[in-house]
Amino acid sequence: MNIERINRVIENMRACGLRQIIVCAPASVYYLSGAWCEPFERMLALLVKDDGTLKLYGNRLFALRGVTDIPLVEYEDTDDCVAVLAPDVWPGAIGIDKTWPSHFLIRLMEMRPDVTPVLGSQPIDDARMIKDEQELELMRISSRMNVEVCTRIGEALHEGVTEKEIQALYNQIALELGSEGPSFTPLICFGPNGAEPHHDSDGTRLKRGDTVIMDVGLLWKHYCSDMTRTVHFGPATDEQKRVHEIVTAANRAGIAACRPGVPMKDIDRAARKVIEDAGYGEYFTHRTGHGIGLDEHEFPDCSAVSGIVARPGMIFSVEPGIYLPGKFGVRVEDLVAITEDGCEVLTWVD
Amino acid sequence: MNIERINRVIENMRACGLRQIIVCAPASVYYLSGAWCEPFERMLALLVKDDGTLKLYGNRLFALRGVTDIPLVEYEDTDDCVAVLAPDVWPGAIGIDKTWPSHFLIRLMEMRPDVTPVLGSQPIDDARMIKDEQELELMRISSRMNVEVCTRIGEALHEGVTEKEIQALYNQIALELGSEGPSFTPLICFGPNGAEPHHDSDGTRLKRGDTVIMDVGLLWKHYCSDMTRTVHFGPATDEQKRVHEIVTAANRAGIAACRPGVPMKDIDRAARKVIEDAGYGEYFTHRTGHGIGLDEHEFPDCSAVSGIVARPGMIFSVEPGIYLPGKFGVRVEDLVAITEDGCEVLTWVD
Repeated sequence: MNIERINRVIENMRACGLRQIIVCAPASVYYLSGAWCEPFERMLALLVKDDGTLKLYGNRLFALRGVTDIPLVEYEDTDDCVAVLAPDVWPGAIGIDKTWPSHFLIRLMEMRPDVTPVLGSQPIDDARMIKDEQELELMRISSRMNVEVCTRIGEALHEGVTEKEIQALYNQIALELGSEGPSFTPLICFGPNGAEPHHDSDGTRLKRGDTVIMDVGLLWKHYCSDMTRTVHFGPATDEQKRVHEIVTAANRAGIAACRPGVPMKDIDRAARKVIEDAGYGEYFTHRTGHGIGLDEHEFPDCSAVSGIVARPGMIFSVEPGIYLPGKFGVRVEDLVAITEDGCEVLTWVD
Repeated sequence: MNIERINRVIENMRACGLRQIIVCAPASVYYLSGAWCEPFERMLALLVKDDGTLKLYGNRLFALRGVTDIPLVEYEDTDDCVAVLAPDVWPGAIGIDKTWPSHFLIRLMEMRPDVTPVLGSQPIDDARMIKDEQELELMRISSRMNVEVCTRIGEALHEGVTEKEIQALYNQIALELGSEGPSFTPLICFGPNGAEPHHDSDGTRLKRGDTVIMDVGLLWKHYCSDMTRTVHFGPATDEQKRVHEIVTAANRAGIAACRPGVPMKDIDRAARKVIEDAGYGEYFTHRTGHGIGLDEHEFPDCSAVSGIVARPGMIFSVEPGIYLPGKFGVRVEDLVAITEDGCEVLTWVD
């Protein structure tokens, strides 16, 4: 276990008035315990109390026995898994990790009507938001590899290739370079498909004149990268060029605003203003960015409603876009790490 | 939307005494609406009421507007997403889908203290448990392709290859054959790694004498396959041969028990008894199988504590195993579809 991180989480619990929390996100359990476990539909839970005691609950199949410095309670497929955890919970409020599947929570409420669940991810989200030196270095490597793979799939674009084929090529090169693989399914969008920010890559074939969005990321020692590059295959029209210039300017304006003390909503505003001023405001339909680290999307958002202020150690994406239905889309995404006096762009590699 | 399926779900709701449920699993939303959406951390919810009214709630990014026959409420990243759903819920009990992330549920409880959440996946799980003809045919194709890919990675085993490389090869061939890709990260385990039923494939290199477990599945039009084959690379020892024979016999005994009217726990028993009688009971550490369809693991389990009885249209795995720590593991997994008078094994292909 990582005592320094656990102590930060307990401090954060006190700041929120929480005496106990249930942590379930695999990345959060890893962050505190050093054990990575994908429980799928089974229950994984780490109970953290403000007296400094921790207890880990997992299925016998998870083989968590390597974690010798945190007491481990194992259950089997034939057990009521919540019943092994319920007796250890104190009466009163308990913070529940945001992604804990509801059926575990409902079962806990049935077994322990004296316990009141409240939102409980903040203490660990706040800790994970500030990356330490070791994490920053892993994030740098992850992004450097991602830039390399993204460049190579860009070079492989040719007439008639499908989105799915470019997607598979990304996955293959990411593995060849020694990463654990993609951190999310690569979003490869040709032509009008790029106008849907979350288009699932399919059998669409590349043709001259298409705008191509490549939104890709990989995993390096559990740490995620994420970037988007947009290119034009064949000569770009004036409209394609103009939209690309606006989005690039918005990305640069967002990045220029990234320094300690600046509210995340002002970073969102800086990027959004460029697009609005150019008359495309209604076509930028999502937040400017999201935190990233052990998870692809993590706290905090870089959006108009964020209450968070940038601090050294925060890493997040700046990814404005313009989506013209039926025509094409452009998105330019970089990852920034806030430093003592500005930011380092992890996805700008010489 | 699929009226016949919705009517079955509403019948099941009445049988459970539930007047309203929130469905959130992407596969369940697809099953009823025909729209596939991966919401990641954002909220996707389908409210189903027993008066036959449905309403779908999704982020504007999801582009769900194609679903024209169900009223759609869209929210944006800057909205409180639960606030768009909360006013539509009736007072009293509401069934909550088992995987709904707890933070949405806790927010709903804050906004609507007059609403009582209860476990609410059963009506839809019961409907999805019985596959119709169209689903059965997609499951057949998915398994047939999986057998083909598994055979090809088995042929590619050679001294010095790593687990990760065989894993990547599976993914590549699965895509080449036209599937949507693997339905889960292929579990490729060499030698002692096979003794951990959930070992993450790594850089371990294959050597003579290793037992190799290949637990693989792919997606065909959203329907999952899943199978496990164990082979011995190089001459098998007497112990490897004997354990493999016992596990194969357990798999066959389980399959032989698969017919309408047989409790799932008796199918588990039939397989488990073979392993126990051979003296390896303590090394078979998991349930015998799990339902499968749009999700890789779905209701019901084939385990000692299942209360479900086999019925025509059910599809599930029969996958006994023996895991000898530090030595090797053997698992043999097939998918069966219960027919009117027995079962069809989807993973036995001529």
